Amino acid sequence: MFEATKVGRSVSKEEFKQQRDELRTQLLDAQRQLRETRIPVVVIVAGVEAAGKGEVVNRLNEWLDSRGLQTFAFWNLSDEERERPRYWRFWRTLPARGELAVLFGGWYQAPIEHRFKGLCDDAALDAELNRIVNFERMLIQDGALVVKFWFHLSERDQRRRLKELSRDDRSRWKMLPEKAHFSEHYQLFEHVAERVIRHTDLGIAPWYLIEATDSRYRDLTVGKTLLQAIRARIQQPLPMEPAPAADALNLPDSSSAQITLLDQLDLTRTLEHDEYQTALKRLQAELNELAWTAYKQRRSMVLVFEGADAGGKGGAIRRITAAVDARLYRAIPVAAPTDEEKAHHYLWRFWRHIPRAGQMIIYDRSWYGRVLVERVEGFANDAEWRRAYNEINEFEEQLVEHGAILLKFWLQVSEDEQLRRFEDRAQTPYKQYKITAEDWRNREKWPQYKAAVNEMVARTSTEHAPWSLVEGNDKPFARIKVLQTLCNRLRVALNGEDQFRSLTNRCGDEGMKPAGG
Amino acid sequence: MFEATKVGRSVSKEEFKQQRDELRTQLLDAQRQLRETRIPVVVIVAGVEAAGKGEVVNRLNEWLDSRGLQTFAFWNLSDEERERPRYWRFWRTLPARGELAVLFGGWYQAPIEHRFKGLCDDAALDAELNRIVNFERMLIQDGALVVKFWFHLSERDQRRRLKELSRDDRSRWKMLPEKAHFSEHYQLFEHVAERVIRHTDLGIAPWYLIEATDSRYRDLTVGKTLLQAIRARIQQPLPMEPAPAADALNLPDSSSAQITLLDQLDLTRTLEHDEYQTALKRLQAELNELAWTAYKQRRSMVLVFEGADAGGKGGAIRRITAAVDARLYRAIPVAAPTDEEKAHHYLWRFWRHIPRAGQMIIYDRSWYGRVLVERVEGFANDAEWRRAYNEINEFEEQLVEHGAILLKFWLQVSEDEQLRRFEDRAQTPYKQYKITAEDWRNREKWPQYKAAVNEMVARTSTEHAPWSLVEGNDKPFARIKVLQTLCNRLRVALNGEDQFRSLTNRCGDEGMKPAGG
Repeated sequence: MFEATKVGRSVSKEEFKQQRDELRTQLLDAQRQLRETRIPVVVIVAGVEAAGKGEVVNRLNEWLDSRGLQTFAFWNLSDEERERPRYWRFWRTLPARGELAVLFGGWYQAPIEHRFKGLCDDAALDAELNRIVNFERMLIQDGALVVKFWFHLSERDQRRRLKELSRDDRSRWKMLPEKAHFSEHYQLFEHVAERVIRHTDLGIAPWYLIEATDSRYRDLTVGKTLLQAIRARIQQPLPMEPAPAADALNLPDSSSAQITLLDQLDLTRTLEHDEYQTALKRLQAELNELAWTAYKQRRSMVLVFEGADAGGKGGAIRRITAAVDARLYRAIPVAAPTDEEKAHHYLWRFWRHIPRAGQMIIYDRSWYGRVLVERVEGFANDAEWRRAYNEINEFEEQLVEHGAILLKFWLQVSEDEQLRRFEDRAQTPYKQYKITAEDWRNREKWPQYKAAVNEMVARTSTEHAPWSLVEGNDKPFARIKVLQTLCNRLRVALNGEDQFRSLTNRCGDEGMKPAGG
Repeated sequence: MFEATKVGRSVSKEEFKQQRDELRTQLLDAQRQLRETRIPVVVIVAGVEAAGKGEVVNRLNEWLDSRGLQTFAFWNLSDEERERPRYWRFWRTLPARGELAVLFGGWYQAPIEHRFKGLCDDAALDAELNRIVNFERMLIQDGALVVKFWFHLSERDQRRRLKELSRDDRSRWKMLPEKAHFSEHYQLFEHVAERVIRHTDLGIAPWYLIEATDSRYRDLTVGKTLLQAIRARIQQPLPMEPAPAADALNLPDSSSAQITLLDQLDLTRTLEHDEYQTALKRLQAELNELAWTAYKQRRSMVLVFEGADAGGKGGAIRRITAAVDARLYRAIPVAAPTDEEKAHHYLWRFWRHIPRAGQMIIYDRSWYGRVLVERVEGFANDAEWRRAYNEINEFEEQLVEHGAILLKFWLQVSEDEQLRRFEDRAQTPYKQYKITAEDWRNREKWPQYKAAVNEMVARTSTEHAPWSLVEGNDKPFARIKVLQTLCNRLRVALNGEDQFRSLTNRCGDEGMKPAGG
């Protein structure tokens, strides 16, 4: 695969100077167009050691307008990163629309190193590469341009470079000697590299293999390649996947699901006042203990509350927060996104709030807005909300894989009950702020919302993150069911009977072991 | 001081119910007005242990609209927090305009605990309290409302509460047993508390002492007090300090400074090409080593570049970034703030980017925009830019105190040289993006900018963060002077001859020791 990168191409000083200035002008112009078209660009800089990746990055910083260009390297993981799913650190670095981010190694670095060091086998590597493919596809479908450079050297050239560097005052090799062994295992590294590139060389995000022997050729080629990629992306419309990702799943379609799910709920179920009081006191006491245990075990908890308007989300959440020490939880009501949030993928704002180890985070509405309100109101187009099912499943799998305990509640009420509550809100002064004209409008779309909910539950009720459907007409019943479900789930997970912890040893995973590990 | 909190006030169940609903309505209404008037509110919840601070916070979360209300506790410092100045974690929690943040203990927690545990004496505590006063004044002058609650119990009541809690399944005392000793040293704690309250009980940010024995009285009083504070803040104009803080300093006023500073620069100084090449190679090699040493010693570096338009900031910065491993630095060009940034104090966006330990961050333009462009163009009013001098000095002191190595460069060129460079930019294709109509407009305000620069340098050239004025007419000379200054400063600091490291042991400081500590 790398033969083409070992033919010894080079560029003379004169040629370089000649081409450089025009290239700079064109790059700056392309960057301006990126800003106008609001296309985010991710540039991955990877390759063999001593290929001069750092020099290339400095060159890009020199040629491009540094406003709207940021560079990120991924080493010494902070504990805030370690306490969250591995991809959190990458989400932190994703560029806003119209800007560029240059990533050293990016999401490729850890898997390559781990496989190279024999910490995982090819199968584990492939599984991780599959995640990478999904991740990049998601970014691209959201409008991003992903440009991946692999810098290569022949074994002879690499050895020569390393010798030079070890003499060079400015080299970092004295600082990071352990890296030197890359050269001693050139063959293995090339094997890993080839496998990684083969599995992740998507039509929508191809790898560009660059011969790095001659630095002038290397830098000019990078500049030209990036320029072409940007121009192509600006001219051609968004590359579309053949079929919406969600269709890959073999799930009941919404029409049939419509009959099978919400309608099965027995909304007539109630709970007597005394039963309620007793159960509430008992469950809140238990929940308080469980939350502290989770804190001690460093397990984070993610609770998602969705439901019909006036479905009783707030009341249920307050019965939880009243029991949990206020230092352990944070409730996040999902309102309109800020412009920084609008300038990123819709999941970005939720990655932002992922709790640290041992913390509980409660979402009052969530990322499911994508397949509910955004679908029904047409804020997201067909392709967008359809592929969201897979994006969400992948997101939640990463949470669970990291050891987070994830619960999702849907609170359902009947149309009549909703009407009663709307009227009650309209009449109670301190409830009026909760009821808006929008609520009344949404109510008219009851059937569309019902279909959306059914499909959502069908497509996103995974074994690692099942939905709990809650009969909400009787508030006491609903609140107790929520608390009961939460306590049961926490008890099982914290007793170490958690089947998903095994998932957490993946190629590329540098994160802490969950569950007090 | 606490006598008034020990008279045994209480509220009956009926009274409570009666008053609660109206209070909720009024609070929600006040919250709505906060949003409209874009006033940020910081609520500090502090006091003796077992006073029920967590219950109060839960109550506020129940009574207020949880959209625009966030709660933060400050324990288990993350290493990302430990690697930055202590106040970074507080800046992270400051509410956006129109929103509320409820802080457990906030910036009071650590100093109180440290003094209480005898880790520092009263003098050290007072020094820290002085910082708190400045910090709160800064927030308030920026438009914030700061409401501070101190919950108190008599010694008898506290002991009774603790006994109850130790029986209660839901208490956190089993989890945090070490806290129990608070009760054993009630007198000492009251001494510390009284001192803290006395020193920080500002007219603009008073403490509200709340008797916490009866939970209904406690919660109602908190609700009513908060309501009154919000209403008062909305009605009355921004509380103004008698004199602009900056005037407290005894510094030359701008008119006299105007003659003494920039005009002393000998802009005719130049460097021959050969000298330049040799010096450049030598200094870049040294800088590369020094940056790695700083990384090993976990010292972060903050470089600030300001200067006349076309003063050569970009070129000087590139000579630095070309020498430093791209994984070690980040260059931040300061462009227009995002709306999230606009919704906070102007320093917030800079606190956001403070580097982790061992990293170098380079600001191309900086927080000094407040006293330069914002002053001259009138984006900041007189009081705003005047008090900015002190705010900036305090900010920089915290950086240095934490062990960061801070350098500030002003690149000066003559009016004629600037004109030449403007014309060159207009003619060179890949430089055109750098020259805008605004640059030409600013040029006409040369005298105003000059006055602003002079006063800036005079008022913010502190011993811990002096300005380096660079003669910029000859680019080679300027670049070498910058590199030379940087290398000298780093060498001194990294050889442990850094006089400011002693500052870092302060009451309340939980941060890591800088310089490889």
